Amino acid sequence: MKLLEDRILKDGNVLGENILKVDSFLTHQVDYELMQEIGKVFAEAYKNAGITKVVTIEASGIAPAIYVAQALDVPMIFAKKHKNITMTEGILTAEVYSFTKQVTSTVSIASKFLSENDTVLVVDDFLANGQAAKGLLEIISQAGAKVAGIGIVIEKSFQNGRKLLEDAGVAVTSLARIKAFEEGKVKFMEADA
Amino acid sequence: MKLLEDRILKDGNVLGENILKVDSFLTHQVDYELMQEIGKVFAEAYKNAGITKVVTIEASGIAPAIYVAQALDVPMIFAKKHKNITMTEGILTAEVYSFTKQVTSTVSIASKFLSENDTVLVVDDFLANGQAAKGLLEIISQAGAKVAGIGIVIEKSFQNGRKLLEDAGVAVTSLARIKAFEEGKVKFMEADA
Repeated sequence: MKLLEDRILKDGNVLGENILKVDSFLTHQVDYELMQEIGKVFAEAYKNAGITKVVTIEASGIAPAIYVAQALDVPMIFAKKHKNITMTEGILTAEVYSFTKQVTSTVSIASKFLSENDTVLVVDDFLANGQAAKGLLEIISQAGAKVAGIGIVIEKSFQNGRKLLEDAGVAVTSLARIKAFEEGKVKFMEADA
Repeated sequence: MKLLEDRILKDGNVLGENILKVDSFLTHQVDYELMQEIGKVFAEAYKNAGITKVVTIEASGIAPAIYVAQALDVPMIFAKKHKNITMTEGILTAEVYSFTKQVTSTVSIASKFLSENDTVLVVDDFLANGQAAKGLLEIISQAGAKVAGIGIVIEKSFQNGRKLLEDAGVAVTSLARIKAFEEGKVKFMEADA
């Protein structure tokens, strides 16, 4: 997605070996127009997949995911990273290890929102090691729902997340695929959409 | 906002003394159409206020806030509840006590996203004791920015958050104002918009 790649080149900041900071338009301050366009591109890619729910994980996935849900005219569900006092009914959970934060957290979705009649498009802002996406796939599988694919805004293609997900038999659609950071500059490989 | 009140009556669940669960359309599964309408109503209320930024707090505030930002054609910023490894620049912080979770957390916004030239509309999903909104006001004040008002989706008017914010001189616009839970039913008072 050229609009996204251009924005990463313009406003993204490479920190150290493998961190890309896009907090001016995606992960902290959010550009709604870019999110709208992202939503349309994912919806176009999955328009014939019979999607009934878009699933993401709090917090940075929510803004792109709600616009994907809008473009597909389905509800969006955001998985919770911590159990909530108001969540007393049946919940589906998975453990997710964050290499960045070096902590394991429990991710959960209320079981009433997913069933075997659902076909899910997973959306997330970043794909690196794929642990968050893997956790969401586990939860969706527990519900008996199908996964049509995983839509990723920015993929760090030099990490192993994509391989992990494709080895699990899931289609990955990434709008920007980063091959490497070279001398503090972002180098892209060809994106999926 | 009648559409919202009707939805609360239809799909909200009252738990115990003072918890309203709206996880089927706002706080877990999200109805984008309702969020769009909420965005339009807040934008109409603040269209002449010169808003330059919409500020909310992760995670449930993000979906309504991004549609408010869209309707006002400005960026949305979501405050973080935990410090992030990629957040190495100057950050503005406030301590927020959660009566529900009985923990104090640090809420933060990168200082580069708010300045004395900004006029902010704060948006959040719930107003109960007002602690989260108060934390956001502190951060915005540290940045030297102005606050035009606070837009709340659901206010629990029997708790003291609104008084706290109004005593601080800030306008509160709530789309649904809950007077009481009577025998497990939600009773509204007149909303602000």
